[in-house]
Amino acid sequence: MLMKAVVMVSFLALTSSLNPLGADEQTVPKSQVERPTYPFDTEEMYDPAVVPAYAGDHAKIYAHIDGAIEDHTKALQRWLRQPSISAQNKGIMDMAEMLRGDLEGMGFKETTLVPTDGHPGVWGYYDAGAEKTLLIYMMYDVQPVNEEDWQSPPFEANLIDHKLGKVVMARGAMNQKGPERAFLNALQSIIAVNGTLPVNLMIAAEGEEELGSPHYPQIVDAYEDRMKMADGVLFPMSSQGPDGNSSMILGVKGILYFEIEARGGDWGGPRKAEIHGSYKGIVDSPTLRLIKAISSLTSKDGNTILVPGYYDNIQAPTHEEQLLLNKVVSVRNDAEIQKSFGVSRWIDGQTGRDALVDLMYNPTLNVDGMWSGYTGPGVKTILPHMATAKMDSRLPLGQNPDDMLAKIRAYLDANGFGDIVLRKLSGYPAAQTSVSTGLSEAVISVYNKYTEGLSVNPRVAGSAPFYQFTDRLGLPMIPAGLGYGRGAHAPNEIFLITPGEGVKAAGLADIEKSYVDMIFAVAKAGRK
Amino acid sequence: MLMKAVVMVSFLALTSSLNPLGADEQTVPKSQVERPTYPFDTEEMYDPAVVPAYAGDHAKIYAHIDGAIEDHTKALQRWLRQPSISAQNKGIMDMAEMLRGDLEGMGFKETTLVPTDGHPGVWGYYDAGAEKTLLIYMMYDVQPVNEEDWQSPPFEANLIDHKLGKVVMARGAMNQKGPERAFLNALQSIIAVNGTLPVNLMIAAEGEEELGSPHYPQIVDAYEDRMKMADGVLFPMSSQGPDGNSSMILGVKGILYFEIEARGGDWGGPRKAEIHGSYKGIVDSPTLRLIKAISSLTSKDGNTILVPGYYDNIQAPTHEEQLLLNKVVSVRNDAEIQKSFGVSRWIDGQTGRDALVDLMYNPTLNVDGMWSGYTGPGVKTILPHMATAKMDSRLPLGQNPDDMLAKIRAYLDANGFGDIVLRKLSGYPAAQTSVSTGLSEAVISVYNKYTEGLSVNPRVAGSAPFYQFTDRLGLPMIPAGLGYGRGAHAPNEIFLITPGEGVKAAGLADIEKSYVDMIFAVAKAGRK
Repeated sequence: MLMKAVVMVSFLALTSSLNPLGADEQTVPKSQVERPTYPFDTEEMYDPAVVPAYAGDHAKIYAHIDGAIEDHTKALQRWLRQPSISAQNKGIMDMAEMLRGDLEGMGFKETTLVPTDGHPGVWGYYDAGAEKTLLIYMMYDVQPVNEEDWQSPPFEANLIDHKLGKVVMARGAMNQKGPERAFLNALQSIIAVNGTLPVNLMIAAEGEEELGSPHYPQIVDAYEDRMKMADGVLFPMSSQGPDGNSSMILGVKGILYFEIEARGGDWGGPRKAEIHGSYKGIVDSPTLRLIKAISSLTSKDGNTILVPGYYDNIQAPTHEEQLLLNKVVSVRNDAEIQKSFGVSRWIDGQTGRDALVDLMYNPTLNVDGMWSGYTGPGVKTILPHMATAKMDSRLPLGQNPDDMLAKIRAYLDANGFGDIVLRKLSGYPAAQTSVSTGLSEAVISVYNKYTEGLSVNPRVAGSAPFYQFTDRLGLPMIPAGLGYGRGAHAPNEIFLITPGEGVKAAGLADIEKSYVDMIFAVAKAGRK
Repeated sequence: MLMKAVVMVSFLALTSSLNPLGADEQTVPKSQVERPTYPFDTEEMYDPAVVPAYAGDHAKIYAHIDGAIEDHTKALQRWLRQPSISAQNKGIMDMAEMLRGDLEGMGFKETTLVPTDGHPGVWGYYDAGAEKTLLIYMMYDVQPVNEEDWQSPPFEANLIDHKLGKVVMARGAMNQKGPERAFLNALQSIIAVNGTLPVNLMIAAEGEEELGSPHYPQIVDAYEDRMKMADGVLFPMSSQGPDGNSSMILGVKGILYFEIEARGGDWGGPRKAEIHGSYKGIVDSPTLRLIKAISSLTSKDGNTILVPGYYDNIQAPTHEEQLLLNKVVSVRNDAEIQKSFGVSRWIDGQTGRDALVDLMYNPTLNVDGMWSGYTGPGVKTILPHMATAKMDSRLPLGQNPDDMLAKIRAYLDANGFGDIVLRKLSGYPAAQTSVSTGLSEAVISVYNKYTEGLSVNPRVAGSAPFYQFTDRLGLPMIPAGLGYGRGAHAPNEIFLITPGEGVKAAGLADIEKSYVDMIFAVAKAGRK
């Protein structure tokens, strides 16, 4: 789930000039009901240069990395050649054991698989006797593949000459084994040179990220008291564009994912099976009922939610977030983002800050899929007995998925849709980390050492269950790292190993060096 | 398509007592807009006994049938063993040629395949030098099969001991080869005994009935002037229940079948492919747009059409139809029909005549199927770029499918849904034959000879392209015949050959004898 958020951020990061969409043509009337707006107190912008570039120099470790880079590449290929498809339970146990064994081999005193109701987690603890403790979130699972769509087999992890340079092509290359293995290579290099780490290190990995992290809370259950002792959480992730600009995410929206279903019942409609379509003349249609129920949730344009209280409890942009957003907007190019999405306009013809704030601070209702009756070619005349849709609602900070579901339920009930079934499939609240935590500043200082165009995004519209860290454990949480990859969840996924001419994204060696710096920066950072 | 209408009629025929649904509980509010109602001038009922039972006796022909019944059964099995699945183009040409050859062998002077843009028609003409001419509509195609679902292979046409008696089990047994071959067996028997037929006989068969008869108009094109010379059109069909009661259909509703689709475009939404669901915050949803567009077509309960003019031009029940409907209602049992359908209530809690007239005389809008985005298990968060539904509208006499589609188009345009795509897949108007035509009375007289409980339905809610006969050729058209079958469009389709103890539906021999009578009755009937 997180990968997508990152893809979206990379679109933001790639924009480079102010060129708002000129046309504000509205072919769809704006609804009478209005979504909340969030007036800003300030036009000032956050400047990441307020954090000095990381000044530490770890020349011996850098040299060790340069000398070992072929071995480090092979260590990554070894991971990539081990399938670990969570959705198909393919290679999961082997990959979990490979991660655990690697940690053990690196000197982690505690390494164990963590049983859950799904695939196991992997826990590791490296006791450096240090003052600071860094918690690393990892995922060891990958998305399924359609082998025939790949130009190089997805689990061969071949090194390929790409226009961007030398890349490794494999499922999981960028999402997430590439960045994660780079991080472990960095750890290994520090230990090899210094004999220990400058921080204590916890690793709490899961094998179900691609399934929506349904059992990560159970992993936290098992180590909650230990995890709370950490100073912050890092998630290794490549965050550069080919131009070298990088982006950083401080928050994610929450999500409520549910199925909504209409079936024939006491209210009318066929209860057990489809009937002949001609009987619509005297038989109610569950399909039309679902359509009416979903339609009742939003304004005519589908963009404003009519459920009472659905815009309550939203935490408006803080002063810090306003500064960050002003900066993001100043380099954001709506037209370019729209082009990359194949979208002609944002809702209500919005652009610039209005669009960005609407995206980040208002909840959504979206239909991810729906189905009913006959969907094949040609003509079949039936009155289906049921209709189902999958819907998701992205929730800003302050909102709770169960509260929102209860509000939808109450609204449907109040409008005569008491028979409509709601089935929650997933849900968790938003997560937010401040730009001024010790962890945040340590990460920014390293970005400032290696890159020029850092974009600090207070939040993305995508969702990840980071609330486990921010809310439950009370820790700052940041996905971070140099490097470039693409093709997550798609064929021909790649991760850049050696940049080609003119490509400014970091290669594997520089990624590892920057992780070395980040670990030392955290060791020196103020707590929170 | 017709088969379903007949299935529905058989439900009507099976009802035997007046027991309207007591409860009129409305959990769905009745819409403000009202569908037209049709006040009746009379409470009088049509009594089929006004037509004297057919008095002719063709003892020699009956005896011939009894003597030849094993050969006649084998002739039917030979047809059933020849697959003719129009949807899969399986055995179509062989079956067309088998029918043509059989007609030639029986003494039809003209027999030919009729090319169309689809599967060929079969034309046959038997010149008896008679005063009257009977046109027979036939279909030689059948529905596809899932062989594993059958207890006896669908193209072996085995004779099976069933609780109803001896039956033949095969795809096409009742729909429609059983009744059709019985009719030809009757013709053959008349010719064998008398040397000729009492009427001239035209046969105009198609091989695409199960596809919605898309090219039957081309068959009529080829023989229109000839066909117009006929005195009426008969469609061999088994119309009895196991209790021996039979039902007769004088009319069918028309149909408009179309797909309705929303796609991202200038108005908003992703144009080319799905995007990440979190972007709903600023991107319009084509799926919600389709939901809004479909929702706009009907009242909140989905049962009254809001498209201006959609209830115009409806031909209200004539005096004759009122008499017929009063009779049908008097023996109709809503609760039993509802139970057989698995439906708790008709729309608005209607029962009796109100429900029946609403069903037969008002147009409908029904969603046959719809789909968009992700429809698999679990969670996938996308904003789909398109959404599609299949819809059908059943049209009473007086309405034209192209007019209705134009009204829907105009309504969508006027309501800001100009981007919504409508794709017509099929459409034809209703058809109606009077109970007082010569053909109708000839058929009723034969029913009155063999059965007691004849139900004469002025119309069914199902659709068949009979307007080709009634409107284009100006002929009365009746699907008729004794006999019983079930399982059309389903596994284990059967046709009753020899009724068991207590089963009052006709077996093959009696079906053939009644067709003999029907042909002689038509020969004597008044024109129209």
